[in-house]
Amino acid sequence: MGLESYQIEKVESVTMADIVEKRLLDYFKKNAFKPGDAIPKELELAEALQVSRNVVREALSRLKMLGMIESKKKRGMVLSEPDIFGGFERVLDPLILEQQTLQDLFELRMVLEMGLADLIFRRKTDDDVAELERIVQKSINQNKASFKVKHEIAFHGKLYAMTGNTTIMRFQNLLLPIFEYVVSEEEKLYGIPPISDVGHGDLVEIIKNGTPQEFKEAMRIHLSPHFDRLS
Amino acid sequence: MGLESYQIEKVESVTMADIVEKRLLDYFKKNAFKPGDAIPKELELAEALQVSRNVVREALSRLKMLGMIESKKKRGMVLSEPDIFGGFERVLDPLILEQQTLQDLFELRMVLEMGLADLIFRRKTDDDVAELERIVQKSINQNKASFKVKHEIAFHGKLYAMTGNTTIMRFQNLLLPIFEYVVSEEEKLYGIPPISDVGHGDLVEIIKNGTPQEFKEAMRIHLSPHFDRLS
Repeated sequence: MGLESYQIEKVESVTMADIVEKRLLDYFKKNAFKPGDAIPKELELAEALQVSRNVVREALSRLKMLGMIESKKKRGMVLSEPDIFGGFERVLDPLILEQQTLQDLFELRMVLEMGLADLIFRRKTDDDVAELERIVQKSINQNKASFKVKHEIAFHGKLYAMTGNTTIMRFQNLLLPIFEYVVSEEEKLYGIPPISDVGHGDLVEIIKNGTPQEFKEAMRIHLSPHFDRLS
Repeated sequence: MGLESYQIEKVESVTMADIVEKRLLDYFKKNAFKPGDAIPKELELAEALQVSRNVVREALSRLKMLGMIESKKKRGMVLSEPDIFGGFERVLDPLILEQQTLQDLFELRMVLEMGLADLIFRRKTDDDVAELERIVQKSINQNKASFKVKHEIAFHGKLYAMTGNTTIMRFQNLLLPIFEYVVSEEEKLYGIPPISDVGHGDLVEIIKNGTPQEFKEAMRIHLSPHFDRLS
Protein backbone atom coordinates (compact mmCIF):
# COMPACT_ATOMS: atom_id res chain seq x y z
CA MET A 1 0.00 0.00 0.00
CA GLY A 2 1.22 3.48 -0.86
CA LEU A 3 1.11 6.43 1.49
CA GLU A 4 -2.15 7.56 -0.08
CA SER A 5 -4.00 4.53 1.22
CA TYR A 6 -3.21 5.61 4.75
CA GLN A 7 -4.67 9.05 4.00
CA ILE A 8 -1.69 10.67 5.61
CA GLU A 9 -2.67 14.19 6.61
CA LYS A 10 -0.60 17.14 5.50
CA VAL A 11 0.76 19.36 8.26
CA GLU A 12 -1.17 22.61 8.03
CA SER A 13 0.80 25.70 8.89
CA VAL A 14 -0.65 26.85 12.18
CA THR A 15 -0.15 30.49 13.12
CA MET A 16 -0.15 32.07 16.57
CA ALA A 17 -3.49 33.67 15.73
CA ASP A 18 -4.94 30.18 15.05
CA ILE A 19 -3.72 28.96 18.43
CA VAL A 20 -4.95 31.99 20.36
CA GLU A 21 -8.31 31.86 18.57
CA LYS A 22 -8.75 28.23 19.62
CA ARG A 23 -7.66 28.99 23.20
CA LEU A 24 -10.23 31.77 23.45
CA LEU A 25 -13.05 29.54 22.16
CA ASP A 26 -12.09 26.81 24.63
CA TYR A 27 -11.90 29.35 27.44
CA PHE A 28 -15.44 30.62 26.73
CA LYS A 29 -16.80 27.07 26.63
CA LYS A 30 -15.05 25.87 29.78
CA ASN A 31 -16.25 28.87 31.72
CA ALA A 32 -19.79 28.61 30.31
CA PHE A 33 -19.74 32.17 28.98
CA LYS A 34 -23.12 33.31 27.71
CA PRO A 35 -24.11 36.15 25.38
CA GLY A 36 -23.86 39.43 27.28
CA ASP A 37 -21.00 38.28 29.52
CA ALA A 38 -18.02 40.63 29.58
CA ILE A 39 -14.72 39.09 28.51
CA PRO A 40 -11.25 40.06 29.75
CA LYS A 41 -9.45 42.97 28.10
CA GLU A 42 -6.97 42.51 25.26
CA LEU A 43 -4.02 43.27 27.52
CA GLU A 44 -5.15 40.80 30.21
CA LEU A 45 -5.62 38.08 27.60
CA ALA A 46 -2.18 38.78 26.13
CA GLU A 47 -0.59 38.42 29.57
CA ALA A 48 -2.53 35.29 30.48
CA LEU A 49 -1.66 33.63 27.16
CA GLN A 50 1.90 34.98 27.11
CA VAL A 51 1.55 36.29 23.57
CA SER A 52 1.73 39.74 22.00
CA ARG A 53 -1.23 42.09 22.01
CA ASN A 54 -1.19 42.07 18.21
CA VAL A 55 -1.83 38.35 18.12
CA VAL A 56 -4.69 38.66 20.62
CA ARG A 57 -6.17 41.52 18.59
CA GLU A 58 -5.96 39.36 15.47
CA ALA A 59 -7.75 36.43 17.13
CA LEU A 60 -10.41 38.70 18.65
CA SER A 61 -10.95 40.29 15.25
CA ARG A 62 -11.75 36.86 13.81
CA LEU A 63 -14.33 36.24 16.53
CA LYS A 64 -15.78 39.70 15.91
CA MET A 65 -16.17 38.79 12.25
CA LEU A 66 -18.20 35.73 13.28
CA GLY A 67 -20.33 37.95 15.51
CA MET A 68 -19.21 36.10 18.66
CA ILE A 69 -17.79 39.24 20.26
CA GLU A 70 -19.13 42.77 20.31
CA SER A 71 -17.47 45.93 21.56
CA LYS A 72 -19.86 47.81 23.85
CA LYS A 73 -19.37 51.41 24.91
CA LYS A 74 -18.34 51.58 28.56
CA ARG A 75 -18.63 47.79 29.04
CA GLY A 76 -15.74 46.77 26.79
CA MET A 77 -16.02 43.48 24.89
CA VAL A 78 -18.91 41.12 25.52
CA LEU A 79 -19.77 37.72 24.11
CA SER A 80 -22.70 37.85 21.70
CA GLU A 81 -24.99 35.50 19.81
CA PRO A 82 -23.05 34.83 16.62
CA ASP A 83 -24.34 35.04 13.09
CA ILE A 84 -24.28 31.29 12.44
CA PHE A 85 -23.95 31.60 8.66
CA GLY A 86 -21.71 34.70 8.59
CA GLY A 87 -18.55 32.79 7.68
CA PHE A 88 -20.46 30.58 5.23
CA GLU A 89 -21.85 33.66 3.48
CA ARG A 90 -18.35 35.11 2.93
CA VAL A 91 -16.93 32.06 1.17
CA LEU A 92 -19.90 31.28 -1.12
CA ASP A 93 -18.29 32.59 -4.29
CA PRO A 94 -18.75 30.30 -7.33
CA LEU A 95 -15.40 31.48 -8.71
CA ILE A 96 -13.33 30.23 -5.80
CA LEU A 97 -15.23 27.05 -4.92
CA GLU A 98 -14.30 23.81 -6.65
CA GLN A 99 -16.72 22.29 -9.14
CA GLN A 100 -17.43 19.37 -6.79
CA THR A 101 -18.29 21.69 -3.89
CA LEU A 102 -20.67 23.67 -6.13
CA GLN A 103 -22.32 20.42 -7.21
CA ASP A 104 -22.57 19.30 -3.56
CA LEU A 105 -24.25 22.57 -2.56
CA PHE A 106 -26.63 22.27 -5.52
CA GLU A 107 -27.66 18.83 -4.27
CA LEU A 108 -27.90 20.10 -0.70
CA ARG A 109 -30.55 22.57 -1.79
CA MET A 110 -32.47 19.77 -3.56
CA VAL A 111 -32.33 17.69 -0.38
CA LEU A 112 -33.71 20.63 1.62
CA GLU A 113 -36.48 21.20 -0.90
CA MET A 114 -37.47 17.52 -0.76
CA GLY A 115 -37.47 17.59 3.03
CA LEU A 116 -39.65 20.66 3.63
CA ALA A 117 -43.06 19.01 3.30
CA ASP A 118 -43.64 18.02 6.91
CA LEU A 119 -42.84 21.48 8.30
CA ILE A 120 -44.91 23.20 5.59
CA PHE A 121 -48.00 21.09 6.34
CA ARG A 122 -47.57 21.47 10.08
CA ARG A 123 -47.37 25.27 9.96
CA LYS A 124 -49.23 26.43 6.83
CA THR A 125 -51.91 29.11 7.27
CA ASP A 126 -54.72 30.28 4.99
CA ASP A 127 -52.76 33.50 4.44
CA ASP A 128 -49.74 31.50 3.27
CA VAL A 129 -51.84 29.58 0.75
CA ALA A 130 -53.44 32.83 -0.47
CA GLU A 131 -49.99 34.34 -1.02
CA LEU A 132 -48.79 31.27 -2.93
CA GLU A 133 -51.89 31.57 -5.13
CA ARG A 134 -51.13 35.24 -5.79
CA ILE A 135 -47.55 34.39 -6.74
CA VAL A 136 -48.75 31.70 -9.18
CA GLN A 137 -51.49 33.98 -10.58
CA LYS A 138 -48.98 36.73 -11.36
CA SER A 139 -46.82 34.32 -13.36
CA ILE A 140 -49.55 33.36 -15.84
CA ASN A 141 -48.80 34.63 -19.36
CA GLN A 142 -45.39 35.94 -18.31
CA ASN A 143 -42.71 34.44 -20.46
CA LYS A 144 -39.69 36.71 -20.08
CA ALA A 145 -36.67 34.83 -18.73
CA SER A 146 -35.94 37.55 -16.16
CA PHE A 147 -39.50 37.34 -14.84
CA LYS A 148 -39.33 33.55 -14.61
CA VAL A 149 -36.24 33.63 -12.41
CA LYS A 150 -37.88 36.15 -10.06
CA HIS A 151 -41.01 34.01 -9.97
CA GLU A 152 -39.03 30.85 -9.14
CA ILE A 153 -37.32 32.65 -6.27
CA ALA A 154 -40.59 34.10 -4.97
CA PHE A 155 -42.45 30.78 -5.10
CA HIS A 156 -39.78 28.54 -3.60
CA GLY A 157 -38.78 31.26 -1.13
CA LYS A 158 -42.38 31.35 0.14
CA LEU A 159 -42.31 27.56 0.66
CA TYR A 160 -39.22 27.95 2.87
CA ALA A 161 -40.84 30.87 4.71
CA MET A 162 -43.86 28.65 5.48
CA THR A 163 -41.64 26.39 7.60
CA GLY A 164 -41.52 29.27 10.12
CA ASN A 165 -37.83 28.50 10.47
CA THR A 166 -35.73 31.61 9.87
CA THR A 167 -32.45 29.64 9.99
CA ILE A 168 -33.59 27.36 7.15
CA MET A 169 -34.81 30.41 5.19
CA ARG A 170 -31.48 32.17 5.57
CA PHE A 171 -29.57 29.03 4.64
CA GLN A 172 -31.55 28.53 1.43
CA ASN A 173 -31.13 32.22 0.55
CA LEU A 174 -27.39 31.73 0.75
CA LEU A 175 -27.51 28.54 -1.33
CA LEU A 176 -29.73 30.08 -4.02
CA PRO A 177 -27.02 31.92 -6.04
CA ILE A 178 -24.93 28.73 -6.08
CA PHE A 179 -27.95 26.69 -7.19
CA GLU A 180 -28.65 29.13 -10.03
CA TYR A 181 -25.00 29.22 -11.02
CA VAL A 182 -24.91 25.40 -11.36
CA VAL A 183 -28.22 25.39 -13.29
CA SER A 184 -26.97 28.04 -15.72
CA GLU A 185 -23.65 26.22 -16.25
CA GLU A 186 -25.59 23.02 -16.99
CA GLU A 187 -27.82 24.86 -19.44
CA LYS A 188 -24.74 26.06 -21.31
CA LEU A 189 -23.62 22.44 -21.66
CA TYR A 190 -26.87 20.55 -22.14
CA GLY A 191 -29.49 23.16 -23.06
CA ILE A 192 -32.60 24.17 -21.14
CA PRO A 193 -34.15 21.14 -19.40
CA PRO A 194 -37.71 20.04 -20.27
CA ILE A 195 -40.53 21.62 -18.25
CA SER A 196 -41.73 19.42 -15.40
CA ASP A 197 -45.15 17.76 -15.48
CA VAL A 198 -45.93 19.25 -12.08
CA GLY A 199 -46.07 23.03 -11.91
CA HIS A 200 -46.30 25.54 -9.08
CA GLY A 201 -50.11 25.65 -9.40
CA ASP A 202 -50.29 21.90 -8.79
CA LEU A 203 -48.08 22.19 -5.71
CA VAL A 204 -50.32 24.92 -4.26
CA GLU A 205 -53.42 22.81 -4.88
CA ILE A 206 -51.82 19.95 -2.90
CA ILE A 207 -50.79 22.25 -0.04
CA LYS A 208 -54.41 23.42 0.07
CA ASN A 209 -56.22 20.09 -0.15
CA GLY A 210 -53.68 17.29 -0.18
CA THR A 211 -51.31 15.45 2.16
CA PRO A 212 -47.57 15.81 2.91
CA GLN A 213 -47.08 12.47 1.14
CA GLU A 214 -48.74 13.74 -2.04
CA PHE A 215 -46.70 16.93 -1.81
CA LYS A 216 -43.46 14.96 -1.59
CA GLU A 217 -44.36 12.95 -4.69
CA ALA A 218 -45.36 16.08 -6.59
CA MET A 219 -42.22 17.98 -5.54
CA ARG A 220 -40.07 15.07 -6.71
CA ILE A 221 -41.68 15.29 -10.15
CA HIS A 222 -41.44 19.10 -10.10
CA LEU A 223 -37.68 18.83 -9.52
CA SER A 224 -37.14 15.91 -11.90
CA PRO A 225 -35.48 18.07 -14.59
CA HIS A 226 -32.73 18.70 -12.01
CA PHE A 227 -32.71 15.17 -10.55
CA ASP A 228 -32.39 13.68 -14.05
CA ARG A 229 -29.12 15.57 -14.52
CA LEU A 230 -27.47 14.17 -11.41
CA SER A 231 -24.70 11.63 -11.81
CA MET B 1 -47.44 52.48 14.78
CA GLY B 2 -44.37 52.46 16.99
CA LEU B 3 -40.83 52.38 15.71
CA GLU B 4 -40.75 48.63 16.15
CA SER B 5 -43.33 48.12 13.43
CA TYR B 6 -40.99 49.72 10.93
CA GLN B 7 -38.29 47.26 11.96
CA ILE B 8 -35.79 50.07 12.13
CA GLU B 9 -32.33 48.57 11.87
CA LYS B 10 -29.74 49.31 14.50
CA VAL B 11 -26.51 50.86 13.27
CA GLU B 12 -23.86 48.20 13.69
CA SER B 13 -20.45 49.47 14.67
CA VAL B 14 -18.28 48.90 11.64
CA THR B 15 -14.54 48.71 12.20
CA MET B 16 -11.73 49.41 9.75
CA ALA B 17 -11.04 45.66 9.63
CA ASP B 18 -14.67 45.06 8.53
CA ILE B 19 -14.28 47.58 5.73
CA VAL B 20 -10.91 46.27 4.56
CA GLU B 21 -12.15 42.67 4.71
CA LYS B 22 -15.08 43.57 2.47
CA ARG B 23 -12.84 45.52 0.07
CA LEU B 24 -10.54 42.52 -0.28
CA LEU B 25 -13.43 40.14 -1.00
CA ASP B 26 -14.81 42.55 -3.62
CA TYR B 27 -11.35 42.93 -5.13
CA PHE B 28 -10.94 39.16 -5.52
CA LYS B 29 -14.37 38.84 -7.11
CA LYS B 30 -13.99 41.76 -9.52
CA ASN B 31 -10.63 40.48 -10.70
CA ALA B 32 -11.88 36.88 -10.97
CA PHE B 33 -9.16 35.56 -8.67
CA LYS B 34 -9.05 31.78 -8.55
CA PRO B 35 -7.51 29.39 -6.01
CA GLY B 36 -3.75 29.38 -6.52
CA ASP B 37 -3.55 32.99 -7.69
CA ALA B 38 -1.03 35.10 -5.79
CA ILE B 39 -2.43 38.16 -4.07
CA PRO B 40 -0.63 41.47 -3.43
CA LYS B 41 1.59 41.81 -0.37
CA GLU B 42 0.35 43.24 2.91
CA LEU B 43 2.31 46.46 2.38
CA GLU B 44 0.99 46.94 -1.16
CA LEU B 45 -2.57 46.40 0.01
CA ALA B 46 -2.12 48.86 2.86
CA GLU B 47 -0.86 51.51 0.43
CA ALA B 48 -3.60 50.87 -2.12
CA LEU B 49 -6.31 51.03 0.53
CA GLN B 50 -4.65 53.88 2.43
CA VAL B 51 -4.92 52.08 5.75
CA SER B 52 -2.39 50.85 8.28
CA ARG B 53 -0.61 47.53 7.86
CA ASN B 54 -2.13 46.34 11.13
CA VAL B 55 -5.64 46.72 9.76
CA VAL B 56 -4.71 44.86 6.58
CA ARG B 57 -3.11 42.10 8.65
CA GLU B 58 -6.28 41.83 10.72
CA ALA B 59 -8.50 41.53 7.64
CA LEU B 60 -6.16 39.00 6.01
CA SER B 61 -6.14 37.00 9.22
CA ARG B 62 -9.93 36.70 9.04
CA LEU B 63 -9.73 35.41 5.49
CA LYS B 64 -7.00 32.98 6.55
CA MET B 65 -9.34 31.66 9.26
CA LEU B 66 -11.97 30.96 6.58
CA GLY B 67 -9.32 29.17 4.54
CA MET B 68 -9.61 31.69 1.69
CA ILE B 69 -5.96 32.67 1.88
CA GLU B 70 -2.88 30.54 2.44
CA SER B 71 0.69 31.61 3.01
CA LYS B 72 3.03 29.70 0.72
CA LYS B 73 6.77 29.53 1.15
CA LYS B 74 8.50 31.59 -1.55
CA ARG B 75 5.20 32.47 -3.29
CA GLY B 76 3.73 34.63 -0.53
CA MET B 77 -0.04 34.66 -0.05
CA VAL B 78 -2.29 32.86 -2.49
CA LEU B 79 -6.04 32.52 -2.71
CA SER B 80 -7.25 29.04 -1.76
CA GLU B 81 -10.42 26.96 -1.79
CA PRO B 82 -12.06 27.90 1.50
CA ASP B 83 -13.43 25.54 4.12
CA ILE B 84 -17.09 26.36 3.49
CA PHE B 85 -18.27 25.35 6.97
CA GLY B 86 -15.20 26.56 8.91
CA GLY B 87 -16.92 29.64 10.33
CA PHE B 88 -20.13 27.69 10.98
CA GLU B 89 -18.19 25.06 12.93
CA ARG B 90 -16.68 27.69 15.23
CA VAL B 91 -19.96 29.22 16.34
CA LEU B 92 -21.94 25.99 16.89
CA ASP B 93 -21.82 26.09 20.67
CA PRO B 94 -25.17 25.28 22.35
CA LEU B 95 -24.24 27.57 25.24
CA ILE B 96 -23.99 30.72 23.17
CA LEU B 97 -26.76 30.11 20.64
CA GLU B 98 -30.29 31.25 21.44
CA GLN B 99 -32.94 28.63 22.14
CA GLN B 100 -34.75 29.48 18.90
CA THR B 101 -31.59 29.04 16.82
CA LEU B 102 -30.96 25.64 18.44
CA GLN B 103 -34.54 24.61 17.67
CA ASP B 104 -34.15 25.85 14.08
CA LEU B 105 -30.97 23.79 13.61
CA PHE B 106 -32.69 20.74 15.12
CA GLU B 107 -35.46 21.10 12.52
CA LEU B 108 -32.91 21.71 9.77
CA ARG B 109 -31.41 18.30 10.47
CA MET B 110 -34.88 16.69 10.33
CA VAL B 111 -35.50 18.39 6.97
CA LEU B 112 -32.19 17.02 5.65
CA GLU B 113 -32.99 13.53 6.90
CA MET B 114 -36.42 13.63 5.21
CA GLY B 115 -34.86 14.85 1.98
CA LEU B 116 -32.07 12.26 1.60
CA ALA B 117 -34.09 9.46 0.00
CA ASP B 118 -33.63 10.35 -3.67
CA LEU B 119 -29.85 10.66 -3.43
CA ILE B 120 -29.58 7.44 -1.36
CA PHE B 121 -31.55 5.42 -3.89
CA ARG B 122 -29.69 6.92 -6.84
CA ARG B 123 -26.25 6.09 -5.44
CA LYS B 124 -26.64 3.08 -3.12
CA THR B 125 -24.34 0.12 -3.69
CA ASP B 126 -24.49 -3.49 -2.45
CA ASP B 127 -21.55 -2.69 -0.16
CA ASP B 128 -23.50 0.18 1.39
CA VAL B 129 -26.47 -2.06 2.11
CA ALA B 130 -24.19 -4.74 3.58
CA GLU B 131 -22.63 -2.17 5.89
CA LEU B 132 -26.04 -0.91 7.02
CA GLU B 133 -27.00 -4.52 7.78
CA ARG B 134 -23.81 -5.00 9.83
CA ILE B 135 -24.56 -1.81 11.80
CA VAL B 136 -28.09 -3.00 12.57
CA GLN B 137 -26.90 -6.51 13.41
CA LYS B 138 -24.41 -5.19 15.95
CA SER B 139 -27.14 -3.26 17.76
CA ILE B 140 -29.30 -6.30 18.53
CA ASN B 141 -29.44 -7.07 22.24
CA GLN B 142 -27.44 -3.96 23.08
CA ASN B 143 -29.37 -1.82 25.51
CA LYS B 144 -26.80 0.47 27.09
CA ALA B 145 -27.64 4.14 26.54
CA SER B 146 -24.06 4.94 25.50
CA PHE B 147 -24.13 2.19 22.89
CA LYS B 148 -27.48 3.37 21.54
CA VAL B 149 -26.19 6.89 20.90
CA LYS B 150 -23.15 5.51 19.05
CA HIS B 151 -25.41 3.22 17.05
CA GLU B 152 -27.74 6.09 16.09
CA ILE B 153 -24.77 8.11 14.89
CA ALA B 154 -23.31 5.18 12.93
CA PHE B 155 -26.60 4.30 11.24
CA HIS B 156 -27.75 7.79 10.29
CA GLY B 157 -24.18 8.80 9.43
CA LYS B 158 -24.01 5.92 6.95
CA LEU B 159 -27.25 7.11 5.31
CA TYR B 160 -25.67 10.53 4.76
CA ALA B 161 -22.48 8.90 3.47
CA MET B 162 -24.53 6.98 0.91
CA THR B 163 -25.51 10.25 -0.79
CA GLY B 164 -21.88 10.43 -1.96
CA ASN B 165 -22.01 14.11 -1.05
CA THR B 166 -19.17 15.03 1.31
CA THR B 167 -20.53 18.55 1.85
CA ILE B 168 -23.86 17.19 3.10
CA MET B 169 -22.01 14.66 5.29
CA ARG B 170 -19.86 17.35 6.86
CA PHE B 171 -22.87 19.61 7.40
CA GLN B 172 -24.83 16.90 9.20
CA ASN B 173 -21.78 16.03 11.33
CA LEU B 174 -21.69 19.64 12.48
CA LEU B 175 -25.43 19.68 13.19
CA LEU B 176 -25.34 16.41 15.12
CA PRO B 177 -24.16 17.75 18.52
CA ILE B 178 -26.83 20.47 18.35
CA PHE B 179 -29.48 17.88 17.46
CA GLU B 180 -28.47 15.72 20.40
CA TYR B 181 -28.36 18.68 22.74
CA VAL B 182 -31.94 19.63 21.84
CA VAL B 183 -33.10 16.00 22.18
CA SER B 184 -31.52 15.68 25.61
CA GLU B 185 -32.99 19.01 26.78
CA GLU B 186 -36.42 17.82 25.63
CA GLU B 187 -35.98 14.52 27.44
CA LYS B 188 -35.28 16.41 30.66
CA LEU B 189 -38.58 18.25 30.25
CA TYR B 190 -40.86 15.59 28.77
CA GLY B 191 -39.16 12.26 29.35
CA ILE B 192 -37.85 9.79 26.81
CA PRO B 193 -40.08 9.72 23.71
CA PRO B 194 -41.86 6.48 22.70
CA ILE B 195 -39.94 4.18 20.35
CA SER B 196 -40.94 4.56 16.72
CA ASP B 197 -42.90 1.83 14.91
CA VAL B 198 -40.28 1.83 12.16
CA GLY B 199 -36.78 0.79 13.18
CA HIS B 200 -33.41 0.85 11.46
CA GLY B 201 -33.88 -2.75 10.26
CA ASP B 202 -37.08 -1.75 8.45
CA LEU B 203 -35.32 1.18 6.79
CA VAL B 204 -32.52 -1.09 5.53
CA GLU B 205 -35.06 -3.58 4.15
CA ILE B 206 -36.70 -0.76 2.16
CA ILE B 207 -33.36 0.51 0.85
CA LYS B 208 -32.68 -3.05 -0.30
CA ASN B 209 -36.00 -3.91 -1.89
CA GLY B 210 -38.25 -0.86 -1.76
CA THR B 211 -38.73 2.50 -3.44
CA PRO B 212 -37.69 6.05 -2.50
CA GLN B 213 -41.36 6.80 -1.87
CA GLU B 214 -41.65 3.92 0.63
CA PHE B 215 -38.42 5.03 2.28
CA LYS B 216 -39.76 8.57 2.73
CA GLU B 217 -42.92 7.25 4.40
CA ALA B 218 -40.93 4.91 6.64
CA MET B 219 -38.43 7.63 7.60
CA ARG B 220 -41.29 9.97 8.52
CA ILE B 221 -42.63 7.33 10.91
CA HIS B 222 -39.12 6.59 12.17
CA LEU B 223 -38.71 10.27 13.07
CA SER B 224 -42.24 10.75 14.39
CA PRO B 225 -41.16 10.83 18.06
CA HIS B 226 -39.24 14.01 17.13
CA PHE B 227 -41.86 15.41 14.76
CA ASP B 228 -44.58 14.95 17.40
CA ARG B 229 -42.66 17.29 19.72
CA LEU B 230 -42.50 20.16 17.25
CA SER B 231 -44.67 23.20 17.86
